[in-house]
Amino acid sequence: MTLPPVTFDPIGLLHTPFQETSTIPKGCGAEHQAEGVIELREELADGLQDIDGFSHLFVLWVFDRVGPPVLVVTPPNDTRPHGVFATRAPVRPVPIGLTVVELLGRDGARLRVRGVDMLDKSPVLDIKPYLSSVDPTGLRRGWLTESEARHAETARPPQA
Amino acid sequence: MTLPPVTFDPIGLLHTPFQETSTIPKGCGAEHQAEGVIELREELADGLQDIDGFSHLFVLWVFDRVGPPVLVVTPPNDTRPHGVFATRAPVRPVPIGLTVVELLGRDGARLRVRGVDMLDKSPVLDIKPYLSSVDPTGLRRGWLTESEARHAETARPPQA
Repeated sequence: MTLPPVTFDPIGLLHTPFQETSTIPKGCGAEHQAEGVIELREELADGLQDIDGFSHLFVLWVFDRVGPPVLVVTPPNDTRPHGVFATRAPVRPVPIGLTVVELLGRDGARLRVRGVDMLDKSPVLDIKPYLSSVDPTGLRRGWLTESEARHAETARPPQA
Repeated sequence: MTLPPVTFDPIGLLHTPFQETSTIPKGCGAEHQAEGVIELREELADGLQDIDGFSHLFVLWVFDRVGPPVLVVTPPNDTRPHGVFATRAPVRPVPIGLTVVELLGRDGARLRVRGVDMLDKSPVLDIKPYLSSVDPTGLRRGWLTESEARHAETARPPQA
């Protein structure tokens, strides 16, 4: 399999409240309510025309301060190992993060957003409109369903 | 803004029925039922452990046969121009595609999937579990809502 490397120029960077990985809420079930700013390169501002009509955006960004890739990981919200492609762990062979944020407002080349889970100053690769494409009734969520059930069991108060 | 370029080694490639861009169903509302295979590099197969529990996956891949970026585009399902970041057009500053596919089965480092909209032999950057994260009732879909309404208007048969 011949796969030449690919090189990209980031379109901008993220401003978030998170200076340290340890302060970011972790795991697939984590609530991300923190606000931040996506700052695009000025010359790309025209590419944001009509973005304000969308309530939510996909942000593709780079885990630029991550260690070497690991193929089998134990996520923060589970006690069992899983293949890294079945998780959102940053230690991926290609360290790209995918986050859905809520768009709060736009000012030129800057987007104010809610729901950031990135380190401050992370490079941004792309922004796309979020469009729900999968009927939730047909969705299976793999090891997460079981993991969440185990957590709920533990969290349940003893019966009176 | 100092933004050094980033370089990635693709994790694999896609096998799809599409040899020409013109044969791929286009636009946000297009139905993608075509089946294909994601072939990972053999040495990454362990990263797929437990992937079979998920019904749907995000695939991040490269538009490797696209022209130069365009900031304002008129999508195939609309007649009006929009900023490229408010569309899924391939002519993006960083030409990464994001597609949700249904997982049909796994055979070692190969995943059989449904819903491919990529050219055959497109490089793959990442695979992530698809988790619906946004309540559909709070979702706004920007210019798409209006565009779809206009199409429906046009498609409506004359009243008897």
